[in-house]
Amino acid sequence: MSKRGFASDNNAGVHPEIMNALNKVNTGHAIAYGDDPVSLEAIANLQKVFGTESSAFLVFNGTAANVLGLDALTQPYNSVLCAETAHINVDECGAPEKFTGCKLISVPTQNGKLYPALLEKHMHGFGFEHHSQPGIISISQSTEMGTVYTRDEIIALSEFAHKYNMKLHMDGARISNAAVSLGMGFKEFTADAGVDILSFGGTKNGMMYGEAVIFFNKELSKDFKYRRKQGMQLASKMRFISAQFNAFLENDLWKKNAEHANKMAQLLYNKVKDIPEISVTQKVEANGVFVILPSGIVEKLQKEYFFYPWDEERSEYRWMTSFDTSEEDINNFTSRLLELLKK
Amino acid sequence: MSKRGFASDNNAGVHPEIMNALNKVNTGHAIAYGDDPVSLEAIANLQKVFGTESSAFLVFNGTAANVLGLDALTQPYNSVLCAETAHINVDECGAPEKFTGCKLISVPTQNGKLYPALLEKHMHGFGFEHHSQPGIISISQSTEMGTVYTRDEIIALSEFAHKYNMKLHMDGARISNAAVSLGMGFKEFTADAGVDILSFGGTKNGMMYGEAVIFFNKELSKDFKYRRKQGMQLASKMRFISAQFNAFLENDLWKKNAEHANKMAQLLYNKVKDIPEISVTQKVEANGVFVILPSGIVEKLQKEYFFYPWDEERSEYRWMTSFDTSEEDINNFTSRLLELLKK
Amino acid sequence: MSKRGFASDNNAGVHPEIMNALNKVNTGHAIAYGDDPVSLEAIANLQKVFGTESSAFLVFNGTAANVLGLDALTQPYNSVLCAETAHINVDECGAPEKFTGCKLISVPTQNGKLYPALLEKHMHGFGFEHHSQPGIISISQSTEMGTVYTRDEIIALSEFAHKYNMKLHMDGARISNAAVSLGMGFKEFTADAGVDILSFGGTKNGMMYGEAVIFFNKELSKDFKYRRKQGMQLASKMRFISAQFNAFLENDLWKKNAEHANKMAQLLYNKVKDIPEISVTQKVEANGVFVILPSGIVEKLQKEYFFYPWDEERSEYRWMTSFDTSEEDINNFTSRLLELLKK
Amino acid sequence: MSKRGFASDNNAGVHPEIMNALNKVNTGHAIAYGDDPVSLEAIANLQKVFGTESSAFLVFNGTAANVLGLDALTQPYNSVLCAETAHINVDECGAPEKFTGCKLISVPTQNGKLYPALLEKHMHGFGFEHHSQPGIISISQSTEMGTVYTRDEIIALSEFAHKYNMKLHMDGARISNAAVSLGMGFKEFTADAGVDILSFGGTKNGMMYGEAVIFFNKELSKDFKYRRKQGMQLASKMRFISAQFNAFLENDLWKKNAEHANKMAQLLYNKVKDIPEISVTQKVEANGVFVILPSGIVEKLQKEYFFYPWDEERSEYRWMTSFDTSEEDINNFTSRLLELLKK
Repeated sequence: MSKRGFASDNNAGVHPEIMNALNKVNTGHAIAYGDDPVSLEAIANLQKVFGTESSAFLVFNGTAANVLGLDALTQPYNSVLCAETAHINVDECGAPEKFTGCKLISVPTQNGKLYPALLEKHMHGFGFEHHSQPGIISISQSTEMGTVYTRDEIIALSEFAHKYNMKLHMDGARISNAAVSLGMGFKEFTADAGVDILSFGGTKNGMMYGEAVIFFNKELSKDFKYRRKQGMQLASKMRFISAQFNAFLENDLWKKNAEHANKMAQLLYNKVKDIPEISVTQKVEANGVFVILPSGIVEKLQKEYFFYPWDEERSEYRWMTSFDTSEEDINNFTSRLLELLKK
Repeated sequence: MSKRGFASDNNAGVHPEIMNALNKVNTGHAIAYGDDPVSLEAIANLQKVFGTESSAFLVFNGTAANVLGLDALTQPYNSVLCAETAHINVDECGAPEKFTGCKLISVPTQNGKLYPALLEKHMHGFGFEHHSQPGIISISQSTEMGTVYTRDEIIALSEFAHKYNMKLHMDGARISNAAVSLGMGFKEFTADAGVDILSFGGTKNGMMYGEAVIFFNKELSKDFKYRRKQGMQLASKMRFISAQFNAFLENDLWKKNAEHANKMAQLLYNKVKDIPEISVTQKVEANGVFVILPSGIVEKLQKEYFFYPWDEERSEYRWMTSFDTSEEDINNFTSRLLELLKK
Repeated sequence: MSKRGFASDNNAGVHPEIMNALNKVNTGHAIAYGDDPVSLEAIANLQKVFGTESSAFLVFNGTAANVLGLDALTQPYNSVLCAETAHINVDECGAPEKFTGCKLISVPTQNGKLYPALLEKHMHGFGFEHHSQPGIISISQSTEMGTVYTRDEIIALSEFAHKYNMKLHMDGARISNAAVSLGMGFKEFTADAGVDILSFGGTKNGMMYGEAVIFFNKELSKDFKYRRKQGMQLASKMRFISAQFNAFLENDLWKKNAEHANKMAQLLYNKVKDIPEISVTQKVEANGVFVILPSGIVEKLQKEYFFYPWDEERSEYRWMTSFDTSEEDINNFTSRLLELLKK
Repeated sequence: MSKRGFASDNNAGVHPEIMNALNKVNTGHAIAYGDDPVSLEAIANLQKVFGTESSAFLVFNGTAANVLGLDALTQPYNSVLCAETAHINVDECGAPEKFTGCKLISVPTQNGKLYPALLEKHMHGFGFEHHSQPGIISISQSTEMGTVYTRDEIIALSEFAHKYNMKLHMDGARISNAAVSLGMGFKEFTADAGVDILSFGGTKNGMMYGEAVIFFNKELSKDFKYRRKQGMQLASKMRFISAQFNAFLENDLWKKNAEHANKMAQLLYNKVKDIPEISVTQKVEANGVFVILPSGIVEKLQKEYFFYPWDEERSEYRWMTSFDTSEEDINNFTSRLLELLKK
């Protein structure tokens, strides 16, 4: 394995407690496809977190959690409104369109966040059969830009959505980082803030694989088990996803991991924010730091610590921290960065 | 976990060597989505098995391997011919139709196996735009009935398919059991027998999750990476699927596991074949035993050893063995069976 | 134009009264897409026929009426049960699968008609997410075999469907021929017999183009206008479909046309039923006659009067009559047939 | 019928010569689905216009011509680039996404026209499986804003597209108006300018229904007949679409109609361009006039002459002329307009 870099929280491995849970659950036979005790426990654990009105379904990955969740709450003639930078818009190879048949309407933003004012101009054509009917607003929490919606901002969006008989979807691939950033439990800024459906992410915060689709209204999830199966996302040896979620939720592992990742992002931010050749382009509210770098040093730095460009035209790059980033990683990285800048 | 039964090879856990590989690979960071060294090694290992003309893509599960593989070799106006008992026909909740847009044409069989003679009557309507155009024949090896195609039977089917400009797809969810049964390497009865595309299964033979789509002509796989991503089947932490395949292929773990499972099926078969109240309905060529049971004993037996009905009308049941089935399991099971029969 | 033959009621032209209506409506401007007075009148006329609880939507052709109708009452994880000979199964190039995502389950029949007894064995897997959920039964009235369901048979099917929370769809491409055959109005054997949704055909009975999707429960049609538009079936100059339906329904033109076509089929049947070299394979209840012909004469006869093979293996052919078939046509045709048989 | 207004060229009726052709072709039987002599003649006529390398397929309407054309030249993982105002983006209820599975990427424009400079920033992510692969550029000629691409502009776009291995699609719902505006034959600014596929419109220029999909490379159209059938767009009584196209092309009816419509748009433009309360927002190059109107008069004017808002926020409206607009219509309309402005 290569050394730890800042390319993506997806590049990190599996947290030892998750790994331990996988080892532990590997004994004897268990009914496949989710009817085993470990899986029933995982569902119960998720319901403890999100409330008795919620229902939870485990899937393999985040693309599927988003796509199947959107599918469950739309018809093909609906449109999905999202930020231009949303993962569902730019990083899923058109999976939402292919599977749901819906039109995606992407909205330019400053910081990856949608606001009612940005959406208002798309609120037309209701009842007019020539237009895709606005059906769902999808937000990412934390966003792809490393920013975090406040609870009030989410409430404003859910009220806006519901006013138009639309639903609010949250892509929570990095929801743990958001929760820690807000200092809140998951329920406070999802179910209690009017979110209708959530992709609850595990993989980016220390799991091996597995995400959950959480409905906050059981009525909406009645037929989801068929969608998951037809959507090729029903794991046969389900206990191994479930065991990860159990470990993730028990003892607040999700929180420890995200607290650490966020803290490392702050550390990284503090190390670079005053470097005159570098400008930080977004608020650092979760585990991502977005910077404009002098083009001369990028290639050299990437050779040792791989990371991705965000906007090549303006020389903007993204650095992500994760549960296993160490202070030493950051010290070494920023030392190397300073060294390159000096040349 | 419940005790080991005969419900499904999916109910088994993960083989210790696979688990060990997962633990071992969990160190440091690795580029996500398959560009890491472990994943490149897995692809190389699969190419070693299937030849340099082959290309391999890892996905999460068998439904996806089948559906995406069919998708890659068809257009929506094609039809897919398969046995009435095929997993793609009866156990994937319509996933092939939804994702590929194709029509499935299911063919009744005696033993889960297709033969040219059974397919001939569907070979019409070519060029006639009112009919779905026959595009692909899909077979399962071993079949859902526990039978195994001989190499010659596969050659006959691939020649038949190619004569009509069709392709031959193999659902190899249990391909290891077939290989052992045939006493052949994988390549002999796939690439070398004219198969065009294969779902190469791991989960049912000791892996935690992960299957591979193998193309035997690189030209056909050129755009498959987009289909996999759009099909919601690109794993971010890919190294953990890859490490399993590496362990699966190295030291012939796949073979040991399948040999054992097949041997246990034979043992089970030998224990029941002469019981007058029971009739075995299919040849036992892999790791499944199909039996007609006296209805009186079924419920009682299932209470202790869960297993599935295959055809309730005729009281037919399916028993599956797996890599971890022990002789003791079989002895205990058949003892209990005999005990119930005596009452 | 070639002379009138017996290939298909689709080969006939447009009835003069329909043509007249088209000419008459071609004056001035009319709001596009169905908000014009002629179209509102057509909808009102259809509601008069099918009852105030019904709602009607015009589309271009029969494939679309069937596919969009099925789409409106299913989810992609549903299955559609139909006769093996159903048009949706064999003559729409997989359009239902592509657009709805559903699995079609085709049931062999003797006469093109489904009965509860034939469907019973498919009534399983409800609630089991591995199986496409039986969602809708589709019947053709009259059938593709020229037979006609009695009202009681339809009631039995709708009761059967509703018992399983399924819907009953009727492909009425030739519904006028069935109505005449039964001596009933349309409503008696559709809405009043428990049918949920109907493709009401016009083209095969004297119209130029245009079919209607009729819902018998307005709740089910609430969002159909979006499906029709997204399904590429909203005509801009709608008044020209509407005017045809108005002419079709006013003065019972549909009835006169179908009475004539059915009568011609009877005449044809009577002319051939006693010819020893010919056997009629289906009851002649509508406007189709199915016969087994001595292979020697077929090609010669087809040269003068084109018609289609139905089952080439058994030398079965289909003869269709239409609103413009004349007694002379039949006399000439059967004379030529007898002449060829004598040689 | 209501009196002639300026709402849409779709509100006009059928040109008498087209109607005459429909009446004339209505005699005897004709093989259904396009194998009749009239349809073969239509295909030949279209090939005469577009060259021997072209192939032509008739469909019912413009939505289908666009959607099926895009479908033929893309895979679901492709993206379709189009102007934000494109009909495929805003007026087809998501039909392209539903049927093709592709992502639409809409590009803001000043005048409804795309230019390479506007597209350049979307030319990235090629080969990167996380992104929809740019596959096709779609332009409208004339545009939805009443503007017309010059031949050179089209050549620039086709060269741009081909440089990236993409295709160029033209939505020619109003291509006759563009041809007249450019003073060119159809071929000059389509096939000869590098366009790969064209929706050739008839309905908006005097036909009753019917559009053609024109491929400029036969290789690309090899399987289109299956797509058309599966796409629910194969007309049974095809001769009636074909006869319209024959009349449309013979004696340059298309040209006379479009010349007249364009001339009427110029007349309307000349009548309003100097009215100080009105500002014309787009060049009047085809048959549309876009104006900002004082809000006080709109409702009153619409009561007598219905027309659509284009951008309600800025009080922008669209007036369309058609083949049957008379000078008197325009005089009456502008008189009423001036009258209202004076109050």
